[in-house]
Amino acid sequence: MSVTDELLAANARYAETFPGPLPLPPARHVAVVACMDARLDVYRALGLSEGEAHVIRNAGGVVTDDEIRSLAISQRLLGTREIVLVHHTDCGMLTFHDEDFRASVEQDVGVRPTWHSEAFGDLEEDVRAQRRRILDSPFIPVKDSVRGFVLDVATGKLSEVL
Amino acid sequence: MSVTDELLAANARYAETFPGPLPLPPARHVAVVACMDARLDVYRALGLSEGEAHVIRNAGGVVTDDEIRSLAISQRLLGTREIVLVHHTDCGMLTFHDEDFRASVEQDVGVRPTWHSEAFGDLEEDVRAQRRRILDSPFIPVKDSVRGFVLDVATGKLSEVL
Repeated sequence: MSVTDELLAANARYAETFPGPLPLPPARHVAVVACMDARLDVYRALGLSEGEAHVIRNAGGVVTDDEIRSLAISQRLLGTREIVLVHHTDCGMLTFHDEDFRASVEQDVGVRPTWHSEAFGDLEEDVRAQRRRILDSPFIPVKDSVRGFVLDVATGKLSEVL
Repeated sequence: MSVTDELLAANARYAETFPGPLPLPPARHVAVVACMDARLDVYRALGLSEGEAHVIRNAGGVVTDDEIRSLAISQRLLGTREIVLVHHTDCGMLTFHDEDFRASVEQDVGVRPTWHSEAFGDLEEDVRAQRRRILDSPFIPVKDSVRGFVLDVATGKLSEVL
């Protein structure tokens, strides 16, 4: 049995007690942008329930055009008004360099990626840089509350990056 | 108190019973690509615990360059080997058209986005299209198990798209 099959079996159990349909727009009007890291259970870590917040995730919790796309849809069409950025300690993005990664990909497959890895060297500086990308984007209408945090994977605790 | 402050208060409670550090690579070697929809609590819906799977999310659960970037890092650097795509019923991406969205953004801010909204008209067809983007990418090394699903937001149940 593959892991995917195990997840499907778990989903059948989840559906047994599923409470039913909820409205499409996030009830708490917030969008979270977090790293894809397996240790970040965003709903649990932020006390969220189903239906409350958009959750956008990728390697690093960075803000590229695709996150601007998601945030623009989130705010313009579905009424979110606050943005929460979450990076975390012990992040994989701190363990390699963009040029090495792209060279290694090119060596293996013969094609150099047109995209960059978004690897970074300083956690807090990167939170600030990603926050800046949101503040600088003309496509995000509501910027009154765009706050960045680092979650400590040893304690589960968030610290704000100012 | 902003919603962000409420999430921080919830996080302080979460940290009180946090079990401590886990390894960086996902224990179950799987990466999930899901829609950002607030009703999809990916960990609960798939029976995942902290540390088990990468979770990548965006508006629609689509596969653009940024998701290829995340999946390439997930597989090449952190050892995941299966990919699970999750779309869902009642998706916001079914409710508008790309050209209308981009025209509306341009009208409001005076700049036409260089990116597309990735809005789609058919849920199952879009799952197949996103799966195809992964299968067609030279940057994803392991493609033995790339499976697509639709989660019914009325029942919580996943159905595979073949």
